[in-house]
Amino acid sequence: MEVMGKARLAKEAVGTWQGLSSGKRAQVLEEMASKLLNNMDQILAENEIDVEQGRARNITGALLDRLALTKERIMDMAQGLRDVAAMPDPLGQVVQGTVRPNGLRVEQIRVPLGVIGMIFEARPNVTADATGLCLKAGNAVVLRGGSEAINSNRIVVELLRSALVAQGQSPEILQIVENTDRTEVQQMLKLNKYIDVIIPRGGSGLIKTVIENATVPVVETGVGNCHIYVDKTADLSAACAIVDNAKTQRPAVCNAAETLLVHQTVATDFLPLLADRLGKKAVTLRGCSKTKSILPSVELAVEQDWETEYLDLILAVKVVKDLEEALTHIAAYGTNHSEAIITESYTNSQRFLAEVDAAAVYVNASTRFTDGSQFGMGAEIGISTQKLHARGPMGLLELTTTKYLVYGNGTVRD
Amino acid sequence: MEVMGKARLAKEAVGTWQGLSSGKRAQVLEEMASKLLNNMDQILAENEIDVEQGRARNITGALLDRLALTKERIMDMAQGLRDVAAMPDPLGQVVQGTVRPNGLRVEQIRVPLGVIGMIFEARPNVTADATGLCLKAGNAVVLRGGSEAINSNRIVVELLRSALVAQGQSPEILQIVENTDRTEVQQMLKLNKYIDVIIPRGGSGLIKTVIENATVPVVETGVGNCHIYVDKTADLSAACAIVDNAKTQRPAVCNAAETLLVHQTVATDFLPLLADRLGKKAVTLRGCSKTKSILPSVELAVEQDWETEYLDLILAVKVVKDLEEALTHIAAYGTNHSEAIITESYTNSQRFLAEVDAAAVYVNASTRFTDGSQFGMGAEIGISTQKLHARGPMGLLELTTTKYLVYGNGTVRD
Repeated sequence: MEVMGKARLAKEAVGTWQGLSSGKRAQVLEEMASKLLNNMDQILAENEIDVEQGRARNITGALLDRLALTKERIMDMAQGLRDVAAMPDPLGQVVQGTVRPNGLRVEQIRVPLGVIGMIFEARPNVTADATGLCLKAGNAVVLRGGSEAINSNRIVVELLRSALVAQGQSPEILQIVENTDRTEVQQMLKLNKYIDVIIPRGGSGLIKTVIENATVPVVETGVGNCHIYVDKTADLSAACAIVDNAKTQRPAVCNAAETLLVHQTVATDFLPLLADRLGKKAVTLRGCSKTKSILPSVELAVEQDWETEYLDLILAVKVVKDLEEALTHIAAYGTNHSEAIITESYTNSQRFLAEVDAAAVYVNASTRFTDGSQFGMGAEIGISTQKLHARGPMGLLELTTTKYLVYGNGTVRD
Repeated sequence: MEVMGKARLAKEAVGTWQGLSSGKRAQVLEEMASKLLNNMDQILAENEIDVEQGRARNITGALLDRLALTKERIMDMAQGLRDVAAMPDPLGQVVQGTVRPNGLRVEQIRVPLGVIGMIFEARPNVTADATGLCLKAGNAVVLRGGSEAINSNRIVVELLRSALVAQGQSPEILQIVENTDRTEVQQMLKLNKYIDVIIPRGGSGLIKTVIENATVPVVETGVGNCHIYVDKTADLSAACAIVDNAKTQRPAVCNAAETLLVHQTVATDFLPLLADRLGKKAVTLRGCSKTKSILPSVELAVEQDWETEYLDLILAVKVVKDLEEALTHIAAYGTNHSEAIITESYTNSQRFLAEVDAAAVYVNASTRFTDGSQFGMGAEIGISTQKLHARGPMGLLELTTTKYLVYGNGTVRD
């Protein structure tokens, strides 16, 4: 298998990379940015092959758009590498430290995770973004992108590896699995000896496959069935603007809202306002029977609507009796990603913040802010929806672990 | 299956438990301690059944000793609950917080993990210890102990649950799987809907089963093939005391040393000193050919010795050319638990600390200190040897996760 050999090479090379100064690692990332900028035509030519093959396989508009690179997008990839290069280095930070009564000095410091396996779908920019973040935090990375973008991914990795060589570093800390057969993924998920963490980025099918088959520890990312609850005391005009933003500002991403819950007392006033606003943006509403009694023209929602991450201009709408019912609905159907309440009630805001079990819980704001750059972390490698290790946007810090350094003086245990 | 129903009950009940004040949670733990102290005879009677059945099944000395409870051990369990009750509560701590340029206030706070699944082998004290830590940090816990201790575990859980009831709390946040059939474990490992994290505690076979079969996120604990490297410049007398302590102070635990690596320059001086000291404690040495040329009476080590966690009074010994060879040996055979160098060389100490990839890396101290109470964390629920989430001793903090609270003002994303 290709992946085993490449992961082993990454594991063998990562020690030297970790031993470099952070200044040197930043310099390598700068070089990577230059390589991309100086070889745009080559990247665009390879990307054109992927796009042509995509068209031939009838890949649709939005997917094709994500696959296609332009000079501007390549410049964004290069700028992303430079931004990451300039970020403060988390490695070596002392998280905590103490001297024990027996004189033993114990320090917990931040160190790289080791070798990170990234499995992602057809967005060639992820290749550069993930490489930048993983390498900046002292890790090696084994990439496995989708077959649709293989030519683009291969040329980008080739250029990034040439930057490592140009800076006197081993290119083996950056690997791409070129065989896009699924058996490679299956093996990758079980390479505990060479891979420390797997981060999948893509649709729910990919995430499920990874979780069900991996023995390597996984950070689950991304499925977001996000809710907005408009409470009895909400400012309805603000609520309209927030729901609009959370649904339409970028509908195809995981932090977009998928279901609206409305308190029964304000439903008659709020829903027509909202329907008017969203109608202008071609949003389809799928409502419960109470919604339909207020807005007769909406489609009637079925059970599946409450479970669906549409990633599209569709919004499920349910009228609820009270906050309690909203919380129960979110607990039943939410994916622990991002959930919002719109309210002027102090008590209800505090209860929602305390009781909703999600990576990010909002009061009077759009769910679209769950994002590394919006939270001030710089770039992100994904949004964790699990509870172990990282929750919410994952930046550089989440690509590290810690170790204890213990300084003795011939110290033994009684 | 029993475990599914019980895990669901735990999940349903945990929200109310998390909503209590930390003072109330501490009070419940105090009540639990009292219940154990007031019902010692009942616990001892049930434990006697386990011990008798163990004898009948020819369980050996050390295992039988771990299984048997005494009044003193029950008092230790009660004291453990009181100590945990008195520890500072990590919940609600603000890990970081910031106001973004658009006025959005983002706070990352510490919250419970949720429902923790503990799978452990025959040590009934783990039942009380794990319950105390998990509950203190606001979690529910589903315990699955070994069949050898089922009667002891059942009575302890019954008493701890009665303490919850006596304090007006739902007993459902503490569950024990009474059917000790393996199919229950298999199902437990895949209950992602009800269990947030699985922590296995036991031998390498148990850990392996859990890692290979779980879809619920796992924190791997415990296997420790720990090394001590005696460098060329080591204080040989201190080295002798440290190796002795790390091997013999408590040989059956994961932070005991299993392999000694000795720099060739000092081997002729050091090994006879050590053999003399360890000989008095009945330690068997298994040496490489160079060791055998210095100590002709030792057994010759085979490849398997370098891989073995003896958990017994046996020590593998290898003479190495230099620090480099020691590092290579540790990288090849270590289990990323605890590793020590004995040296007076500043450069070598720094290199060892930087390059060894383990939860705890020591200079001039015994590996036996890798332990929650020794590191000043209070009690521990296990020692993580993985890199995700927690590394090294896991205390209360490691039984929490975080969530982002986001405060807006009608805030939408541009």
